Amino acid sequence: MNKATIVVHSGEMDKLMSALIIGNGYLAMGGSVTLYFTFWGLLRLIKGQLSKGPLSKMNMLGLGSWMMRLRMKKKGVASPERLMTDFKALGGKVIACEMTMDVMGISKKRLDDSLIDEYGAVGLYVKESKEADLTLFI
Amino acid sequence: MNKATIVVHSGEMDKLMSALIIGNGYLAMGGSVTLYFTFWGLLRLIKGQLSKGPLSKMNMLGLGSWMMRLRMKKKGVASPERLMTDFKALGGKVIACEMTMDVMGISKKRLDDSLIDEYGAVGLYVKESKEADLTLFI
Amino acid sequence: MNKATIVVHSGEMDKLMSALIIGNGYLAMGGSVTLYFTFWGLLRLIKGQLSKGPLSKMNMLGLGSWMMRLRMKKKGVASPERLMTDFKALGGKVIACEMTMDVMGISKKRLDDSLIDEYGAVGLYVKESKEADLTLFI
Repeated sequence: MNKATIVVHSGEMDKLMSALIIGNGYLAMGGSVTLYFTFWGLLRLIKGQLSKGPLSKMNMLGLGSWMMRLRMKKKGVASPERLMTDFKALGGKVIACEMTMDVMGISKKRLDDSLIDEYGAVGLYVKESKEADLTLFI
Repeated sequence: MNKATIVVHSGEMDKLMSALIIGNGYLAMGGSVTLYFTFWGLLRLIKGQLSKGPLSKMNMLGLGSWMMRLRMKKKGVASPERLMTDFKALGGKVIACEMTMDVMGISKKRLDDSLIDEYGAVGLYVKESKEADLTLFI
Repeated sequence: MNKATIVVHSGEMDKLMSALIIGNGYLAMGGSVTLYFTFWGLLRLIKGQLSKGPLSKMNMLGLGSWMMRLRMKKKGVASPERLMTDFKALGGKVIACEMTMDVMGISKKRLDDSLIDEYGAVGLYVKESKEADLTLFI
């Protein structure tokens, strides 16, 4: 009876990775996980954009997102694409925020439908959260 | 017996909106909600500053906060002011962080007292959080 | 039976302070607290770097991190170093993310070992979080 709901508000690569790494860890230990993609986070669900977010701190250690990707690859850390594939394979649920789609003018056609389990608004997130033990806003 | 406590640490318009949209959704579904405004979030409680925060990502999609406001208006999405009015009408509670007021030199006179239910420090937040099911840091 | 787990993903001074202030408040009221330092947050565990993070919003009110530190000192607000010392004295637990150390090439030698209770990966965080009442991502 363990459940996590994570709001993915930020679109940066490092924050998306944290969301997916925590989500996958939670799933691997037998819990269920729902990710609610909203605001800048929703942009990552556009086809081909999953790992296209910038880093939240470009200048720390002089790491750009491409260099981060390179280092992760060298160290055998999964890419955002692989983390998402694992997330879905482990039974994780992805919700796309309809209000964000409307405000930003992003149609369903532009989103990667294969990743999305449900389209909904805040009511759906709240409903999912009421059953959750672990709640994060990223 | 459902309760949410949200720390509003960030002062950006999009993050404040996420806090209020989630808060209002939670209240609408019968829960109780406390928002704890601290650090940059507290600046939004200064008279007339509720929707004056920048966007957390200015360059994504080329959206500035004024353009975001315009798009939201066109799409019938409530403004931060309206979201806050609804939040209060639905029984939501707002706490202003006294430490932040002290450090930033912001007196009670400058804050919009009509929005604030209580002035307090971290002890008050922790007390509220101990009864909460949904806890977020925004 | 109250427990808080906080992911410290951000390395900015104001966000680290929020994490430590909330953590210390929670400990002071009889709870237990685990901080999981990952991504940019881990950089703050490098020797001498605890209060070297920039502010998350440099331009708001024109406050730089040095000016923030000066104001806090004047107002009697504890520094990040003091907050961390209190956190440890109150029994707070610090976990350093091994994946971040590996990706960023940060060896144990460079970290301030006196602050760190455990080195681990996401599985350790998830385990700690499953028992937690208050869960935050900062």
